[in-house]
Amino acid sequence: MAKKIIVIGGSAAGPKSAARARRLADDAEITVIQKSHELSMASCGFPYYVGGFFNDRNQLLTTPTGVVRDPSYYMKAKNIVARTDTEAVAIDRKTKTVTTKNLLTGSTDTLAYDKLILAMGATPRMPPIPGIDLDGITTLQSMADADFLRKVRDEGKIKKAVVVGGGLIGIETCEALQLAGIQITVVEMLPQILMFLDWQFAKILENHVKANAADVITDNAVAAFLGDDQGKLRAVKLANGDEIPAELAVVAIGVIPNTKLAKDVGIKTGKTGGIIVDEYLQTNDPDIYAVGDCIEIPHRLSGLNVHAPYGDLANLEGRVAGENAVMGNVATFPGTIQTGVCKVFDFSAGSTGLSEAAARKLGIDVETVVSSGPDKPDFMGARVLINKMVAEAGSGKLLGFQCIGLGDASKQIGMAAMAILGGLTVNELVNADLPYAPPFSLAIDNILACAHSLQNKMRGIMHGLSAVEVKAKLDAGEKPFIIDCRAPEEWEQMRLGIGEHLIPVGALRGRLNELPKDKETEIISYCKISLRGYETARILAANGYTNVKVMEGGIVAWPYQREK
Amino acid sequence: MAKKIIVIGGSAAGPKSAARARRLADDAEITVIQKSHELSMASCGFPYYVGGFFNDRNQLLTTPTGVVRDPSYYMKAKNIVARTDTEAVAIDRKTKTVTTKNLLTGSTDTLAYDKLILAMGATPRMPPIPGIDLDGITTLQSMADADFLRKVRDEGKIKKAVVVGGGLIGIETCEALQLAGIQITVVEMLPQILMFLDWQFAKILENHVKANAADVITDNAVAAFLGDDQGKLRAVKLANGDEIPAELAVVAIGVIPNTKLAKDVGIKTGKTGGIIVDEYLQTNDPDIYAVGDCIEIPHRLSGLNVHAPYGDLANLEGRVAGENAVMGNVATFPGTIQTGVCKVFDFSAGSTGLSEAAARKLGIDVETVVSSGPDKPDFMGARVLINKMVAEAGSGKLLGFQCIGLGDASKQIGMAAMAILGGLTVNELVNADLPYAPPFSLAIDNILACAHSLQNKMRGIMHGLSAVEVKAKLDAGEKPFIIDCRAPEEWEQMRLGIGEHLIPVGALRGRLNELPKDKETEIISYCKISLRGYETARILAANGYTNVKVMEGGIVAWPYQREK
Repeated sequence: MAKKIIVIGGSAAGPKSAARARRLADDAEITVIQKSHELSMASCGFPYYVGGFFNDRNQLLTTPTGVVRDPSYYMKAKNIVARTDTEAVAIDRKTKTVTTKNLLTGSTDTLAYDKLILAMGATPRMPPIPGIDLDGITTLQSMADADFLRKVRDEGKIKKAVVVGGGLIGIETCEALQLAGIQITVVEMLPQILMFLDWQFAKILENHVKANAADVITDNAVAAFLGDDQGKLRAVKLANGDEIPAELAVVAIGVIPNTKLAKDVGIKTGKTGGIIVDEYLQTNDPDIYAVGDCIEIPHRLSGLNVHAPYGDLANLEGRVAGENAVMGNVATFPGTIQTGVCKVFDFSAGSTGLSEAAARKLGIDVETVVSSGPDKPDFMGARVLINKMVAEAGSGKLLGFQCIGLGDASKQIGMAAMAILGGLTVNELVNADLPYAPPFSLAIDNILACAHSLQNKMRGIMHGLSAVEVKAKLDAGEKPFIIDCRAPEEWEQMRLGIGEHLIPVGALRGRLNELPKDKETEIISYCKISLRGYETARILAANGYTNVKVMEGGIVAWPYQREK
Repeated sequence: MAKKIIVIGGSAAGPKSAARARRLADDAEITVIQKSHELSMASCGFPYYVGGFFNDRNQLLTTPTGVVRDPSYYMKAKNIVARTDTEAVAIDRKTKTVTTKNLLTGSTDTLAYDKLILAMGATPRMPPIPGIDLDGITTLQSMADADFLRKVRDEGKIKKAVVVGGGLIGIETCEALQLAGIQITVVEMLPQILMFLDWQFAKILENHVKANAADVITDNAVAAFLGDDQGKLRAVKLANGDEIPAELAVVAIGVIPNTKLAKDVGIKTGKTGGIIVDEYLQTNDPDIYAVGDCIEIPHRLSGLNVHAPYGDLANLEGRVAGENAVMGNVATFPGTIQTGVCKVFDFSAGSTGLSEAAARKLGIDVETVVSSGPDKPDFMGARVLINKMVAEAGSGKLLGFQCIGLGDASKQIGMAAMAILGGLTVNELVNADLPYAPPFSLAIDNILACAHSLQNKMRGIMHGLSAVEVKAKLDAGEKPFIIDCRAPEEWEQMRLGIGEHLIPVGALRGRLNELPKDKETEIISYCKISLRGYETARILAANGYTNVKVMEGGIVAWPYQREK
């Protein structure tokens, strides 16, 4: 007899599960239950619709050939019954049924399943603070949210808005609304935006956001939303008492897995709040699978379960659960390394694996390096990238990689993600055979340059300090001898102003007499990207200086104010 | 006593060897001997200078900050003696000396070495045919060549030219000269251009070159160059007797490793003609290392030695040999997987690992798939990519990947290269956690879609045929029932015209009666990229058809003439 498959949730993981099940079992009876009116929305595209990168709303809801992904499409193209505007209100594990309620008519129904796939998604977290229900406070998660914010853009009436939360969605929303001509302030409770990056990288991005006219406030929470007489938002009050005038606030402080329906019938959830699944994406009920934003999955490097609400993982999980639901447990899902990328105005920013902070929090001893470089030769229009490599101390196994800058970080992150999945070490990465041609890359690609630097560091050939470490030394009153080894013309254009001495690397061998006589003096060298800074350090070491360090990544990786 | 290091060759691998040696041994006496006047030229940039992508010749010869990489720069910045316009005329392994000759003054010198690094590069292969010495026949390898061709561009006098050879340099030169307003014909002796690609992909690129107004002739050799009374080229005569009028011919049929100097003193060369080195890049003389275009190195997948004259490998090899020359044999070079990428007008094209043809030639049993897809969502301005994945049969280990199209192939190739180096299998690749955001990629990136398809094929869920296999069937008179399962509007715009029946996938379940009654009939389905083609095949299989195949990659991967 044909298997009955019910999928609860029709956004990303749900439709993918259903489609995969259909392809593997054409006789299965497959039903998708979707609370909202739309199916299979390209929700990751919402910020770009709001920001005016494209104007045809339909593109979020249609196939590449323009067919709307509605119930009729699902029936015709995939022989899948899609019940939209329909809520799954209860599961009965004993009778293996789901009770649904049509939200338009109020009618209920009871559907039987052989296998049930839960793809219920997640709900934006809302802070439990005064004024949260005022008019003008929204999220950017649903099609309705996107429509509302796009209307705000098109009407052009709102002048000031606050984005609460400096994570991925917050920063994407900030860009979208700033491009709509609205003055944005991003408020982040934590000491930095974009927590998947280490502080230094997040700070450089924060500077870039500010350079694009949006404001960013970190280390400060929203205490209350203040309204006017009509119940409309007029300002956002922060924990430190500051008030930011705003007619609009978009809350983007994360999402909570939708698990109530499951928990009510004894499906187990984990520490992150997500449904617990095994490698087959099966819950504690063997007839119930779960996928997407409502589950937690293992981080492949830490082994700990994490909540990873990403569209790409939702699709991969859907493929596995859809297959297992109709074929028995044949496919496995290994988990995530939390690879991600985002656009931040003209910058791209990405990360894969563990950040240094995340690794250290797990108690992993790591070696790291920051390395900057152009994405291609200057004559082909180079754009700078700033990279950070994190490797396990000792083994040198690649654990993490971050990349930000004007170039395409997604390429570097994609390569690094594959390298992590393949278990490559720094000693293996230094000789990686990567695609090179001037329109696309440097002969020594950024990820190679990073591996070269980190290998040099791990072997004691280079002693590096991050910009953060250098700043901490200066703030603590230490007096290292600092050398900016660029050319005078470069110095005229841009310089740090941290007490550095300008000694171009080409002149260094003739100017050693200008250096401290005590060869144990701590010397720190840098240039624009610190390639010449490294050469300077090698020259000094060869001349008997025993405490020479390179400021990694150079001036472009300096996250603080510059003199010029 | 300070070690004396001599490096013969100052283009790419040589300067990198010298710089690495310097950084690791500041007291070493390092001399680079360079036959030409220029040092460390960005020779991979020559086609882009010729093509007018940039106009400042100095950018090929300077550091990013505009300092010319001349002997004075090498002395000041790196304390390296660079003797330019100087030829190494003899090596004496017994006395450990190199005899040099200054090509400007004629004076000779004898220099002692402790370690010698050979980085003598390669010389363009010239066909031994009549007229090869005519005026107007050149290569694009030296700065002088680049200057000559740039002058041709700037003067605008030459109207027709032939590029002999359809390899990387040939195709890059074709684009450069075509953009200069010259009518180009590329003549390739082999059945296809760009031999690192399988025929189908090379053919699609050939079509793209032709769509950009340049002509391409394959399977036809140059028999003679024909001159006028003044000894100037006037036409190129082909093996089939055709004559192509041309005032300029650029020969790009490969390069021959420069090894004479080494062979003369018993340094061994291999089957490819390159100097044989071990994993330390040491020749059969332990005091002599060799790097760059004059050596052969192991292909990491076949184990066979290959000649791989690529700028990126030259740099990686230089880093290893430079280190070993001063530190003893501590660094190793594992070889190549022949990763490469190039720009072909608006297309990019890349490959890593083994092509299907190369693998089969080695006797490796492989499974392959062709898969097409947009590089990002349509609403963000999608550009199509056509991908091919080659995996070892049985194990599913990734052996090769090719990518061509309007999107950035270098990203796909970089990820695939890392996956090959990490030994990932198709079953591991299907769940790779890659960076996703609409400005950069699809939720299911091309390389993932490829892995999904190939896994489906290897498990018998999908039966695929390449466009080449379909064409062969038709040419052999077979009569499969062919279904184009796109929408009628798409069919109006573009169609193959190979006897196909238009049955949109959404209508298929209701039109099964139009299909052959014999369920064993061979049925082939496709759409634009063959995602719907795959759904069609699954529906037919579920309805009892036992011989249903998908034409992989869809219409965009069809390399032959289309009806429309």
